[in-house]
Amino acid sequence: MKIVCKKSDLLNGVNIVSKAVPNKTTMSILECILIDATENKIKLTANDNEIGIETIVEGDIREKGKIALDAKILFDIIRKLEDSDVSIECDSSLKTFINCETANYTIIGKPADEFSYLPEIERLDSVTVSQFTLKEIIRQTIFSIADNDNNKIMTGELFEVDGDVLKVISLDGHRISIRKITLKESFPKKKVIVPGKTLNEMSKILSGETDKEVKIFFTGKHIIFEFDSTVVISRLIDGEYFKIEQMLSSDYETKVTVNKKKLYDSIDRATLLVKEGDKKPIILNIEDESIELKINSTVGSMNEKIDISKQGKSIMIGFNPKFIMDALKVIEDEKIDIYLVNPKAPCFIKNPEESYIYMILPVNFTTVG
Amino acid sequence: MKIVCKKSDLLNGVNIVSKAVPNKTTMSILECILIDATENKIKLTANDNEIGIETIVEGDIREKGKIALDAKILFDIIRKLEDSDVSIECDSSLKTFINCETANYTIIGKPADEFSYLPEIERLDSVTVSQFTLKEIIRQTIFSIADNDNNKIMTGELFEVDGDVLKVISLDGHRISIRKITLKESFPKKKVIVPGKTLNEMSKILSGETDKEVKIFFTGKHIIFEFDSTVVISRLIDGEYFKIEQMLSSDYETKVTVNKKKLYDSIDRATLLVKEGDKKPIILNIEDESIELKINSTVGSMNEKIDISKQGKSIMIGFNPKFIMDALKVIEDEKIDIYLVNPKAPCFIKNPEESYIYMILPVNFTTVG
Repeated sequence: MKIVCKKSDLLNGVNIVSKAVPNKTTMSILECILIDATENKIKLTANDNEIGIETIVEGDIREKGKIALDAKILFDIIRKLEDSDVSIECDSSLKTFINCETANYTIIGKPADEFSYLPEIERLDSVTVSQFTLKEIIRQTIFSIADNDNNKIMTGELFEVDGDVLKVISLDGHRISIRKITLKESFPKKKVIVPGKTLNEMSKILSGETDKEVKIFFTGKHIIFEFDSTVVISRLIDGEYFKIEQMLSSDYETKVTVNKKKLYDSIDRATLLVKEGDKKPIILNIEDESIELKINSTVGSMNEKIDISKQGKSIMIGFNPKFIMDALKVIEDEKIDIYLVNPKAPCFIKNPEESYIYMILPVNFTTVG
Repeated sequence: MKIVCKKSDLLNGVNIVSKAVPNKTTMSILECILIDATENKIKLTANDNEIGIETIVEGDIREKGKIALDAKILFDIIRKLEDSDVSIECDSSLKTFINCETANYTIIGKPADEFSYLPEIERLDSVTVSQFTLKEIIRQTIFSIADNDNNKIMTGELFEVDGDVLKVISLDGHRISIRKITLKESFPKKKVIVPGKTLNEMSKILSGETDKEVKIFFTGKHIIFEFDSTVVISRLIDGEYFKIEQMLSSDYETKVTVNKKKLYDSIDRATLLVKEGDKKPIILNIEDESIELKINSTVGSMNEKIDISKQGKSIMIGFNPKFIMDALKVIEDEKIDIYLVNPKAPCFIKNPEESYIYMILPVNFTTVG
């Protein structure tokens, strides 16, 4: 095999498929990227059997062939090369020569036959969104998946298509994040659980441009994303997602409208008194025209009053400050509405259209001072 | 005590003196910053008995007094406050109230009497340099001090004043870095060993502006830096510095002139094949019009030819690549001269004026292929 590509194209391709290379594995072939130039295109593939990515790189094929190369070494080499044409050439003994301007590398590849290709999956029903939208919707929900495997389903996100609405849901037992977007056309109903890891990697690869599209295919066992010259195939998580409708109530006793940045900054200021791992709640004392935020820790105490407008009853309620901040961080609105029932019931941060709903469970607290 | 300062002034002051607060200590008073407003200025002090820093902060003294506050907590609180006036007030029970706009913190201070003030040292002979020069000369030498205490003297740098020349030297047993600058006037001879830690902290505090000055005072046991509204006092390292003159020879068998960036980039490209902790030398094969760089590791091999101009004999010599890169990183010249004698003798990278001299010992290597 001998191929010649521009350094920038090659680097971009290697960077994309590297997202499917596992950090730790005992199978060294999984640490490789397959360069396949057996047909009339240069295709890079990585595949850890949960998530697989392939992408086409522009370039010249001087001699057809294929080789598997260690992803990390390949990435490091290409990254450091000068901004010029890069040639990759391998012989029958798997010796691989990478050359760019005056620099010559020799590394040993692995046989392409050992590499497990991506599964051939029929791609029928697809939903189309912009790269920007998909990247955003992931960012706005991914923080509330569970970070351990105790409940596999919680480590993924529900992707649900119903008519012209795509709804994405994540939850971790303490909170629920829901985002809805309207699609350009209607699609048949679909409901799948996508692994959080896949979505994390996707959001790193997506360019975030509004005028570039992603086609999403849903199959029984897989979700497939097609965009630019790249295909990402991921296994789905088996099982039935949680029935969250019964947890979402629109009744409330108190509605608070508050400046988002002011609330965020104040909670941020309060939490610096809390040492990591120390589970101190922030207490919100909601009165007619203000919230008083209070936190007490071994380090000291802090309180701050913020102007609000309020409908309904006054209430004092405690939260894990991180959970509130996580939600506020991904809301774009300048002013937000918070709906509360009582100190034991979940609060909802949502907009009137309900294009976002963040539900957060309160925590018990003891009032001091 | 009650003082009111602008947030930015206070943050700057706390940030500066925090550099003298030790990361780990069993004496909690050492983790504190003393705020002393007993006279007509607001003075912040931190002191770990090796290095002590005091700085004056602009502001209003509403009630005279003093208090010691945990440096990290104070810094975190002030950093997160809004950009407005900050008041710090403490009562006789050491309860301290920090207020800014709507935010109110309460923390507990420590008695100011427990705090050890900076020693009173007579400041006589001083040398003046710009903040820029001092910051640069530290950056250009600090990387070659020893990073462990086996030989205390190697953990510091020699500051030597002779007439109108300030010479700064560091060495770690494998290499020597020397920088010389010409002072605006002549000063009596001085020779002290300044702890590397002090210089590291100094370079973080110095603004790096060319039109701001630093006065350096030398005393028997201390070095004192005065700049802006800040005073830094550091103990010196006792002992006699190494006699390096006998290691600096100006004889050479080979002189190479090479583009610094090309050489740096090439070594950088070579070292990515070397895993951390693996002590693979880079081999320079110096011929009439080129250097061929070669590296061999378990990962693979790399070679690259760079154009040079050469006087004297051809030579093949091996180096720890990091040592060459460290020196190249802090040299501003586009082209550099390298002087060599034989594969066992040190090489010198220096300019004709010898305002910089970097000496690096070679390493043994076995030629492969």
